[in-house]
Amino acid sequence: MAAIQRWGASRRWSDVVVHRNVAYWVEVAADLDRDPRGQIEQVLAQIDATLRDLGTGREQLLQVVIYLADLADISILNELWDDWVVPERAPVRACVQAGLGAGCRVEMVITAATP
Amino acid sequence: MAAIQRWGASRRWSDVVVHRNVAYWVEVAADLDRDPRGQIEQVLAQIDATLRDLGTGREQLLQVVIYLADLADISILNELWDDWVVPERAPVRACVQAGLGAGCRVEMVITAATP
Amino acid sequence: MAAIQRWGASRRWSDVVVHRNVAYWVEVAADLDRDPRGQIEQVLAQIDATLRDLGTGREQLLQVVIYLADLADISILNELWDDWVVPERAPVRACVQAGLGAGCRVEMVITAATP
Repeated sequence: MAAIQRWGASRRWSDVVVHRNVAYWVEVAADLDRDPRGQIEQVLAQIDATLRDLGTGREQLLQVVIYLADLADISILNELWDDWVVPERAPVRACVQAGLGAGCRVEMVITAATP
Repeated sequence: MAAIQRWGASRRWSDVVVHRNVAYWVEVAADLDRDPRGQIEQVLAQIDATLRDLGTGREQLLQVVIYLADLADISILNELWDDWVVPERAPVRACVQAGLGAGCRVEMVITAATP
Repeated sequence: MAAIQRWGASRRWSDVVVHRNVAYWVEVAADLDRDPRGQIEQVLAQIDATLRDLGTGREQLLQVVIYLADLADISILNELWDDWVVPERAPVRACVQAGLGAGCRVEMVITAATP
């Protein structure tokens, strides 16, 4: 059975799970007091930190499913996202509006290739 | 081409699809007359049954994306979930509120490693 | 590191990403002026076109997560879907209601096996 590696494993969940060279994880902003722009910036920075921990980079992202508490924030998302992804090496992306936890403006479900 | 295995294949969907040692499936409670607690309990039991059919276990879960009809049910979810997952070997988890079918209080999209 | 292949890579996203014989992509109707039936028909046709580009077919679909702007459209979805999938070789399917972009009635997140 192919080994499963976990980062940040707690009682409730693992921060990151890696299996057969694919990493799965979920990000919400560490600081939910920030406004939508601040939370999106922080989530993207958190993804960068996780990619570094995994020994990989933004160009290895496979898929990002983005849940926004308010789809009106998509213009802010796109502005920050377009500066963040590696052009021509961006992942697949879905973005929909869903109900998120108290204060939470954005939640991202990420799949990336790992070495 | 790597073989695809299917469990419970019907006209509309397969209950479980396995490809390259990864299983994909979706659970809603078999009994939608149950209250949120009852549906979450049943969905977790159904996941156990599927894991058994696959010859694998809770510690091989990779990712669970949970849709709740009412995010207020997250405290019930967390209570049942925390007793259910294998501590320190839990999957990645996302949980958002979305519109579900009539009577349905919870829907889970599961990814797990298989032997 | 296993190679990542991309189709339709732009600044913001890739239309399709393939990694280790699994393809990931997202579809919304090219023509958002169509009604729900028209958009669902178009999305299914677009999936066919992508499967052709990938050298694979409907029977290689692993998972489809469907977001509807209005869950009342699920009867239309099911009617079109049941005629479209390969019976007994259908993917896993989840379907929930979520907020979609202006005019968009359906968004599908697809995972498929590739040669």
